[in-house]
Amino acid sequence: MGALRLPSLTSLFTSSSSAAALPRRHLRLPSRRLSTTNCSAQSSTAEKELLSPSELEDPPKLKIQQDKERVITPRSQDFNAWYLDIIANAELADYGPVRGTMVIRPYGYAIWEAIQEYLNVKFKETGHSNMYFPQFIPYSFIEKEASHVEGFSPELALVTIGGGKELEEKLVVRPTSETIVNHMFTQWIHSYRDLPLMVNQWANVTRWEMRTKPFVRTLEFLWQEGHTAHATPEEAEMEALQMIDVYTKFAYEQAAIPVIAGRKSKVETFAGASKTYTIEAMMGDRKALQAGTSHNLGQNFSRAFGTQFMDENGQREHVWQTSWAVSTRFVGGIIMTHGDDTGLMLPPKLAPVQVIIVPIWKKADERTGVLNAASSVKEILQTAGIKVKIDDSEQRTPGWKFNFWEMKGVPLRIEIGPRDVSSGSVVVSRRDIPGKQGKVFGISMESSSLVPYVKDKLDEIQSSLLGMATSFRDSNIVDVCSYAELKEAIAQGKWARGPWSASDNEELKVKEETGATIRCFPFEQPQGTKKCLMTGNPADEVAIFAKSY
Amino acid sequence: MGALRLPSLTSLFTSSSSAAALPRRHLRLPSRRLSTTNCSAQSSTAEKELLSPSELEDPPKLKIQQDKERVITPRSQDFNAWYLDIIANAELADYGPVRGTMVIRPYGYAIWEAIQEYLNVKFKETGHSNMYFPQFIPYSFIEKEASHVEGFSPELALVTIGGGKELEEKLVVRPTSETIVNHMFTQWIHSYRDLPLMVNQWANVTRWEMRTKPFVRTLEFLWQEGHTAHATPEEAEMEALQMIDVYTKFAYEQAAIPVIAGRKSKVETFAGASKTYTIEAMMGDRKALQAGTSHNLGQNFSRAFGTQFMDENGQREHVWQTSWAVSTRFVGGIIMTHGDDTGLMLPPKLAPVQVIIVPIWKKADERTGVLNAASSVKEILQTAGIKVKIDDSEQRTPGWKFNFWEMKGVPLRIEIGPRDVSSGSVVVSRRDIPGKQGKVFGISMESSSLVPYVKDKLDEIQSSLLGMATSFRDSNIVDVCSYAELKEAIAQGKWARGPWSASDNEELKVKEETGATIRCFPFEQPQGTKKCLMTGNPADEVAIFAKSY
Repeated sequence: MGALRLPSLTSLFTSSSSAAALPRRHLRLPSRRLSTTNCSAQSSTAEKELLSPSELEDPPKLKIQQDKERVITPRSQDFNAWYLDIIANAELADYGPVRGTMVIRPYGYAIWEAIQEYLNVKFKETGHSNMYFPQFIPYSFIEKEASHVEGFSPELALVTIGGGKELEEKLVVRPTSETIVNHMFTQWIHSYRDLPLMVNQWANVTRWEMRTKPFVRTLEFLWQEGHTAHATPEEAEMEALQMIDVYTKFAYEQAAIPVIAGRKSKVETFAGASKTYTIEAMMGDRKALQAGTSHNLGQNFSRAFGTQFMDENGQREHVWQTSWAVSTRFVGGIIMTHGDDTGLMLPPKLAPVQVIIVPIWKKADERTGVLNAASSVKEILQTAGIKVKIDDSEQRTPGWKFNFWEMKGVPLRIEIGPRDVSSGSVVVSRRDIPGKQGKVFGISMESSSLVPYVKDKLDEIQSSLLGMATSFRDSNIVDVCSYAELKEAIAQGKWARGPWSASDNEELKVKEETGATIRCFPFEQPQGTKKCLMTGNPADEVAIFAKSY
Repeated sequence: MGALRLPSLTSLFTSSSSAAALPRRHLRLPSRRLSTTNCSAQSSTAEKELLSPSELEDPPKLKIQQDKERVITPRSQDFNAWYLDIIANAELADYGPVRGTMVIRPYGYAIWEAIQEYLNVKFKETGHSNMYFPQFIPYSFIEKEASHVEGFSPELALVTIGGGKELEEKLVVRPTSETIVNHMFTQWIHSYRDLPLMVNQWANVTRWEMRTKPFVRTLEFLWQEGHTAHATPEEAEMEALQMIDVYTKFAYEQAAIPVIAGRKSKVETFAGASKTYTIEAMMGDRKALQAGTSHNLGQNFSRAFGTQFMDENGQREHVWQTSWAVSTRFVGGIIMTHGDDTGLMLPPKLAPVQVIIVPIWKKADERTGVLNAASSVKEILQTAGIKVKIDDSEQRTPGWKFNFWEMKGVPLRIEIGPRDVSSGSVVVSRRDIPGKQGKVFGISMESSSLVPYVKDKLDEIQSSLLGMATSFRDSNIVDVCSYAELKEAIAQGKWARGPWSASDNEELKVKEETGATIRCFPFEQPQGTKKCLMTGNPADEVAIFAKSY
């Protein structure tokens, strides 16, 4: 039977009438009907009577007029509205029918797949095997580790009915897997020869969040969770550090996000961990996003579950453990780091489409020549391993297409018109440099010059995105020496970095008074003696304070 | 910080004392303690009082004496016990703490990853995009399609508590996603230009099964589910057929399983589908395993959910849909198709380890030479894209290792001893040909001869596995002309193939009286006129009857 080879991305085009090219700052695109009766509201009704209004998330800001042209909210005007507009219009995600859930649409999912592809290889290179643990966890497991249950019990979804019958023990839908992992490790680990045990799973997890936001915080999300067990505390610490390092490199080199890696304060440490390492990213609105964490769990879970091994001297000891995770939240981080008023801006290494080809013709007799040239350019780039797509839809003008694919964040655009066909060349435009400045004419269509040119440009864009994000970050971190300076920096929407050795209570006071929390004690520390910004006592380290998602 | 490069497969070795090589038929391996207090029993207690004993699965047959050598039950003696022994000893899976759930261990998960890698590419080549739908489905959705709710409601797991509060509407933990998919499609599909819409997701699903068996039927399992919407019934039918064809090719070419593809009877059609296509595989005990299905859903779900589009003439119509799935059950199918008394036998194309290298030395001064040669052979094969591993553990004898890796189903073994090092050659043994017959001496270690030799052998094994399974299948299908012949064939444990045009009631009678069901009306049909084996009336097609998993 014949294959139905229908490019799935064609479905990205909506059906309303075509629009002319429009100036950049007010990008007009036909609105997509997301849901006239808002889906997100549907299941809210199920809970509205049980929750006070303040506990419910804001009504979604997605603009949903049907069959009208609309303007994407400029990022500079309303960051949150811009974020939701981009997610809707770039078709990254949609609201699921149950409050707080998210449907990850193909274009958004492709970014997640690019993240998975890179990390999966790194996890295997560092000695981890993938596996899968069941998502239903007996409720009693959650209660075994005291701080873990305290941290997670308000967020649990519970299965109480199975196969039409009431269950005697409620089942927790996995919010994270440390408990079930330890239950299984106990059966697999007997001797030091079984260690280290280093596994990872790609899975969905559920946390009953009240305030949700697509990608950033959803009731269900996708992630990977690594779990390891070791014979010594030193090995566990090395592993926890190794994995935060893998995440840091990923953020810099693939996502072009200049995260700050460091250690969480005691107050902000994961429920059940001895130490939490984190990578913190600065979003376009200067709020911090915790983009990945790696926990040294010490013996907290192994003591709670009795996960022991016989050491080389025949002594029984509890194992030392780590866990570490990155989730679909990272997609939100990419949007909010690089996007601009025009829309999404994707780092080439994670972009589902790296190059969009827009063929341009007016007269019917130009059509074939232009389309043939476009196909051949596509073929050349595809063969070279570049993710390329032609937009040959005839319902849209070239100007509309330029705007559309800029809004979708595609790093490079290739334009091919009749004159380009005659001269055997193309026009190349960069997403990260607006207007004529980012446009180069007369690039030869020949594989031997086009391929290296495109690869170079993609590399340049990758670096340029990291550079822009780094400058933005650095110009928004203020070194502070006193609480007054900290408050001022936070009030200006910036991050404050200053020496800290004060108490947990004083840390909580900062949060109450400024809304900012310690994001981390960065690994990179300034030299010299330091005095705590709050108490004036000697401090070993500087901490970074910021408001966060 | 330094990478902890610790090969995860070393943890496959247990710690009890070493064992000498043993004859093939009674493979002895140190027993693994799966769980002294049986995990699977733990949550059963939660339900035992609510369910009659007959509703509960058999207690797991996994042999669990600790620190004793044990014998794997020969397949010929007790197929089910053999299956569970293999799963435990090859470390493919383990029981989860909740009754009927399964932990997929790294070696088993690696087989699933190989399945995913192949199918994921095929799905994209045929125009599908990956995405993700939430797993929580409002209960009311399930009720919208009449036969769907009838089929699935006895198997549902329900979330009734979220964030510490009772929910007003119960949430179904996804047993399959047609309902939520249609809810979303309704928002994305407006015009014929939005069609076809072709997506797939890799996800976990939950069905509250009473009788479970690792991989074959578990309370939670992993799968992919494709969902498509089309403008015409012809396109939907083509898509449903295309996808069963993708599965069929996968089964033959990758898994070496000679499935029979065909159409399900009305009685056996998926709850909510117009037509179900299936691939049916014959297991080593001659029971049938439904290994993949593709459904033409017609307009059943689009009518229930109002999924409509405007056609080219401006008329509103309901879309035509398909869905199709393959699950971790396929791993069970691979085990039960190719395994033998010695253990697992994996088709090279899906084997996590294709070649195991066993270095052999007696004297200390031989050690370095042998290990260096083994490393260099590993390097050569790895560079050529072959999945290879060295077992250089010093706690085990070569004989023990031979048995162990045969039990794990590795297609090829390379032995390297001191004499091989001097002669620059290796010994190669095939898993599928026992003893000396499968052993070839003096294969040069040179890359230029070793690589093509190993690749050829892997191809030969791949074909040989398919050949053996095909002969086995063909010698166990009996062509029958009457109900008496059918009953006899089924009583002998075989499959019966005969003309069928009788009623649903008569089909159910066969099931009651023989335990066999119609597995499918195969696509490949004999020529000529046919008379129904049950009624003697004219019949268009032959059907295949068999007992099944």
